[in-house]
Amino acid sequence: MATYKVDDQDIQFTIFDYLNIGDLCQLDVFKEHNADMYKMVLSEGLKFTLNELDPLYVSGDREECHIKDGKVITPKGFKEAYNKLAENGFMGIDMPTTYGGMGLPVLLNTAMYEYFTGSNTALLLYAGLTRGSSHLIETFGTKELADLFCGRMYSGQWAGTMCLTEPHAGTAVGDLKTTAKKNDDGTYNITGNKIFISSGDHDLTENIVHLVLARVDGDAPGTKGISLFVVPKYWVNADGSLGEANDVNCVNVEHKMGIKGSATCSLNFGENGKCRGFLLGDQSKGMRYMFQMMNEARLLCGMQGLAIAATAYENAVAYAKERTQGGETAIINFPDVRRNLATCRSLVEGMRALLYKAGWHIDQAAHNPDPEQKEYHQNRADLLTPVCKAYCSDMGFRVTEIALQIFGGYGYCSEYPMEQYVRDVKIASIYEGTNGVQALDLLGRKLALKQGQLFREYYEEISNFVAANENNDDIKEDVALLKKAVDTVGQVAMKFAEWGMGGEKNLPLLGATPFLEMVGHTSLSFLLLEQCLVAKDKKDESFYMNKLKTTRFFNRQILSNVQKCAKGILSEDRSAMEIDF
Amino acid sequence: MATYKVDDQDIQFTIFDYLNIGDLCQLDVFKEHNADMYKMVLSEGLKFTLNELDPLYVSGDREECHIKDGKVITPKGFKEAYNKLAENGFMGIDMPTTYGGMGLPVLLNTAMYEYFTGSNTALLLYAGLTRGSSHLIETFGTKELADLFCGRMYSGQWAGTMCLTEPHAGTAVGDLKTTAKKNDDGTYNITGNKIFISSGDHDLTENIVHLVLARVDGDAPGTKGISLFVVPKYWVNADGSLGEANDVNCVNVEHKMGIKGSATCSLNFGENGKCRGFLLGDQSKGMRYMFQMMNEARLLCGMQGLAIAATAYENAVAYAKERTQGGETAIINFPDVRRNLATCRSLVEGMRALLYKAGWHIDQAAHNPDPEQKEYHQNRADLLTPVCKAYCSDMGFRVTEIALQIFGGYGYCSEYPMEQYVRDVKIASIYEGTNGVQALDLLGRKLALKQGQLFREYYEEISNFVAANENNDDIKEDVALLKKAVDTVGQVAMKFAEWGMGGEKNLPLLGATPFLEMVGHTSLSFLLLEQCLVAKDKKDESFYMNKLKTTRFFNRQILSNVQKCAKGILSEDRSAMEIDF
Repeated sequence: MATYKVDDQDIQFTIFDYLNIGDLCQLDVFKEHNADMYKMVLSEGLKFTLNELDPLYVSGDREECHIKDGKVITPKGFKEAYNKLAENGFMGIDMPTTYGGMGLPVLLNTAMYEYFTGSNTALLLYAGLTRGSSHLIETFGTKELADLFCGRMYSGQWAGTMCLTEPHAGTAVGDLKTTAKKNDDGTYNITGNKIFISSGDHDLTENIVHLVLARVDGDAPGTKGISLFVVPKYWVNADGSLGEANDVNCVNVEHKMGIKGSATCSLNFGENGKCRGFLLGDQSKGMRYMFQMMNEARLLCGMQGLAIAATAYENAVAYAKERTQGGETAIINFPDVRRNLATCRSLVEGMRALLYKAGWHIDQAAHNPDPEQKEYHQNRADLLTPVCKAYCSDMGFRVTEIALQIFGGYGYCSEYPMEQYVRDVKIASIYEGTNGVQALDLLGRKLALKQGQLFREYYEEISNFVAANENNDDIKEDVALLKKAVDTVGQVAMKFAEWGMGGEKNLPLLGATPFLEMVGHTSLSFLLLEQCLVAKDKKDESFYMNKLKTTRFFNRQILSNVQKCAKGILSEDRSAMEIDF
Repeated sequence: MATYKVDDQDIQFTIFDYLNIGDLCQLDVFKEHNADMYKMVLSEGLKFTLNELDPLYVSGDREECHIKDGKVITPKGFKEAYNKLAENGFMGIDMPTTYGGMGLPVLLNTAMYEYFTGSNTALLLYAGLTRGSSHLIETFGTKELADLFCGRMYSGQWAGTMCLTEPHAGTAVGDLKTTAKKNDDGTYNITGNKIFISSGDHDLTENIVHLVLARVDGDAPGTKGISLFVVPKYWVNADGSLGEANDVNCVNVEHKMGIKGSATCSLNFGENGKCRGFLLGDQSKGMRYMFQMMNEARLLCGMQGLAIAATAYENAVAYAKERTQGGETAIINFPDVRRNLATCRSLVEGMRALLYKAGWHIDQAAHNPDPEQKEYHQNRADLLTPVCKAYCSDMGFRVTEIALQIFGGYGYCSEYPMEQYVRDVKIASIYEGTNGVQALDLLGRKLALKQGQLFREYYEEISNFVAANENNDDIKEDVALLKKAVDTVGQVAMKFAEWGMGGEKNLPLLGATPFLEMVGHTSLSFLLLEQCLVAKDKKDESFYMNKLKTTRFFNRQILSNVQKCAKGILSEDRSAMEIDF
């Protein structure tokens, strides 16, 4: 059953026109590339998506991962598709070429992940974990370690995972109980239980490389004393050949609401005292290393929100054009249906602008030769990461909900993919730090970083955009609405600062989630308006008019959530702290 | 596994203190009752819920209805529980006693349905359909027909359904193709296909009585020419004994996102030309009759939203008190968790006030001897029915989503009931007329009825409440917020009227759904404030303080959605009509 639908025109516009990916080729690292080459990669990615990933979307859900004879079995076809993905080089599109990455821009990988994740989130999780963990080894490990693992991981021969969560240490990673004890040969004995490990065990590859957070005996409590270990399922000899089983045991595969084709495992390390691992990088720096992967994973969570929302929206449009109600009238002619579709569309296009631009910032931060530019882009990526993760996963869920609704009773039945979209996308608001944690990250860390510089830069950039365009006849009414929104965001941020200086703790924490929502909505308004300017110059009239109207809808129907959220925060209401639940 | 949790204190408060159910006993029809008796029934209902319904909640989902050897098999235990429900008299709690109803107030039935639906929506659907269809036969059928069917339905011996939807006639019922042809013996030959028929076939009872909408050959097209037929699965002889199979064939049971224990069937009537039915009431009045059942069903949809949200919220509170994160601190101490819980709580208590009060209005409309009072209550029930249905199913979904989120990764796994709550409650926004249709009903029918009298009465009642309490020190700030909300609702309603007079069609239709949301939020604010006044007089200090703070939270954090929605409507934005999807 083919389910994946995509608005490739908007993706191409966002990469090639709005973000001008061709300009990235002026950076030294991409100097051998050009826009045409990127176009070709994209087109290969879409072909692979439609031919290999999409056909397994529904069947992967129905078959679900399960344990049989002590082994974790993935849905039929997953192994073949995973291998093909690696063969095509898609495991490390934006990774260095040293061990088999393609060395392309993060921005391009972002678009590829929209295809991949939108057509088969569950399957892509295996690849996402593998690329992330391999990249960690490559970045922080010795050359010896990287030589041993990374090539085999990017090639699809071995897979990877990240093992953080334990039964009583989820958000509070510092509470973990897994221990590591140094052996005479320099390896470490690992003992502990990890839960909710995506791709924790499966039959896609001959080996699985776990990156495990553990505390070396005697190290500090909390996150400070945590180290990171490379713990293969089967021991890896110095020549890369596989040794004996490494005492990593999968004791459970979770039954979940969605992404059922992804094996979410409980793993016991060292049940029999025989689990060994290699220390990655320096002792006690595990959390710092892990954050590289986590930041990337958070953007991919946001991408799940966008990607699933986007295909759900496209499916809803197609259905609304076909489905008649009351004679020959297709339901897409009904204003209430159009309002629902416009809500989905504006959120999808806005989230796409946000996530792709975050990818572009990361490319610039990594490779721009100008240190000031580098810092500016890194600041923006840091500021927006929690917004990308939380806003896009929450709004992604909302879009799938509305898209399902357009199908009426059919949307609730498994004959169509709509209900699966709703189930699959929900996880994105939970893992890699729940959305509540993202809101605290934005408020407690990112807003305070460098005396508020990250936020101030963003605020000023939007304000400058407003100033430059408030007399632009095409968009001036919308710019006025954006001005109101960004002023409100600024006002609330000032209030947080005031509370902070006054020692007030609860009011900022109560306002964190609505504040993140405010920043998300304001960002979408800003980026959609930026796109309007570009579309007017670069695209045909009909594309431009659609972008303009989609933007207008967003600014009139959704953006005023900013004032709603602000009203709640500024009311200084403490009732939630006072209710005796 | 026990999953159902309920705040019985708030239920009892709402019935006995806020709505003063004892006063209903002054009505002639309830004169032999008293409040203590109602309390006993409630307590029996809760006992039945915990002992019989709750234990089948999870297993019913896992086993799912399916066809085996041509028969529809329901999950284990459903048949026994269904029989016990009927034996206890719970099939027709608020139905006349003639054929086995208990003759109790609708208000009491409302509370019972919170227990029943919250603990096992899927199982309750069989009972809901049976009581509804039996009541239709009782109300509109001949005595002969009622004698034949109703007693056997309330007693649980036979079940019932309502068969409206066809493959290309969902919202547009008038497009149906099922036909009826009169036979010489006065029965009708029925031919057609119906889909999405809840309880359409199952093994709970020896017979199933379908109420089928069909068009008698030669009758008018559209809804005007539709008649209603009683079509048993097995033919019923004049003495009530069962005859041969009546050519009603179940050809499919849907796989659905949730309520998997409820058999959603495709039924073929008269495949072999041998399906007979009895005409119910007058020819061509089918739609009018069906609306009695539909209005009741719409309130029950709203109840599904509330009931599932309420148990999801209670589960989240219990989990948040138990679950520690970062040492010994239970997560209920974290402000962001408390904000989430307060959101759920205020919506749940507000929806409870709304739905129970709707039940009370229906009792008064049916039995109050004063014709003016009767009309006032009927008006209010009519006005609020679409709000109860759409607002409570949408907000119910939102609450389950937030409650799941509080469980983090555990919420996404099937070990806890949270993800099932999300899946189960979703259907309520779809069936019995999608929420979009409810919004059109509110705007296009209810607002216009009796030259706007229904709406005006409600608007004035809230305005009078505001006037009477704007100097009440306990709540005056909240009353000011309510005043702003109700004024905004009034302003938007005036704008709709203005558009209507100007012949403007699209803007009202685009604004229908946000307008319904505005009325819902404003209603909750009003009713919660009413409850505060009552709680201050009648309940202990701690209950009162909690009600007050829950109300304050609602008015400061949620009620301003009214202004947000109004801003969108009043912007006169037509972009959704203009986007070329």
